[in-house]
Amino acid sequence: MQIAIVLFDRFTALDAVGPYETLGRLPDAETVFVAEETGPVRNESGNLALVADRTLAEVPSPDIVVVPGGPGQTPQMENETLLDWLRTADATSTWTTSVCTGSLLLAAAGLLGGRRATSHWLALEQLERFGVEPTGERVVTDGKYVTAAGVSSGIDMGLTLLGRIAGDEHARAVQLLTEYDPQPPYDAGSPEKAPAHLVEELRARSRFILR
Amino acid sequence: MQIAIVLFDRFTALDAVGPYETLGRLPDAETVFVAEETGPVRNESGNLALVADRTLAEVPSPDIVVVPGGPGQTPQMENETLLDWLRTADATSTWTTSVCTGSLLLAAAGLLGGRRATSHWLALEQLERFGVEPTGERVVTDGKYVTAAGVSSGIDMGLTLLGRIAGDEHARAVQLLTEYDPQPPYDAGSPEKAPAHLVEELRARSRFILR
Repeated sequence: MQIAIVLFDRFTALDAVGPYETLGRLPDAETVFVAEETGPVRNESGNLALVADRTLAEVPSPDIVVVPGGPGQTPQMENETLLDWLRTADATSTWTTSVCTGSLLLAAAGLLGGRRATSHWLALEQLERFGVEPTGERVVTDGKYVTAAGVSSGIDMGLTLLGRIAGDEHARAVQLLTEYDPQPPYDAGSPEKAPAHLVEELRARSRFILR
Repeated sequence: MQIAIVLFDRFTALDAVGPYETLGRLPDAETVFVAEETGPVRNESGNLALVADRTLAEVPSPDIVVVPGGPGQTPQMENETLLDWLRTADATSTWTTSVCTGSLLLAAAGLLGGRRATSHWLALEQLERFGVEPTGERVVTDGKYVTAAGVSSGIDMGLTLLGRIAGDEHARAVQLLTEYDPQPPYDAGSPEKAPAHLVEELRARSRFILR
């Protein structure tokens, strides 16, 4: 079993590392970080770099594809090398997954048409423009496509898919090992729960956040 | 304001990236990944590398120190270069923090004696041997020392400290932006909540997990 986590310029680190630390603990699986070129790939802030150990071309048929998001998604949505790889990898994958605006890349590659999927709450409208049925759920499974909401939701996605593949028992063991017993100090993690003025403020800034 | 996140061989990725993605969004702060040498630093599985952009020597006095954990902590607990740097950095830091077994490094550096602190649930006894008062809480603040429990708890720690420094409003905005509205598919994230046989199994394996 091979899990490929895709990196690209200006990705969001937790989008990639959440699924890595959960789903990546699948028994007998190899996880590999891939990008157009090997070497460090910088996140949106530029002060974090994860290393891509293999090129996209070197990993043509992973069993599981994980696509993180990032605020600089627009250029990637026109990156034909990346979109072609997503289409090729998806043709033989068992699961094709995304976190955050990673679903916009899957949609831009034409993989989510007519399906239910999710994304960062600020990107749901954009997702709809690709003929996708957006939902406000945190983790959405439609066939072999598993999409997660913003940034931190990749942890929930990773555990959910881990349970589906390796069984509830193994997923619970990984939850315990990663001590995933969340106790956020605030209750503002979704647009339904956060103060309305914060939601509006982030919506107003989202033109910049998502570009 | 400078935030230094310390990397070392066999660190746990989410320990570092959880605080990075939350606390790292402190306004007007620079976050820098540091290690003994610059360049890629591999996690415990070897299939993930984060890049250290500066050496420890180049960042002698960060305002906030973040120390992740990892299962290969024992050699680091005898790494005098790292422990010396922790002592030096701590002498002028505003906050000294850890996630998971990172607290064992702070304790080994002599920084937590007589204080309340936490660690990965499998490492609490080891913490006690350093004269630290271990607690089962997820995030513990004692003076300027903020320690968090296992792996994923760094997200809660990061948001907690962010609120303390930048105010609740900013921390809520970061929680909303990172869509941190956790919905774990299981309720097994702590030894109190997980099935007893899983707790015992991980305890039995912990000799290997923690080395």
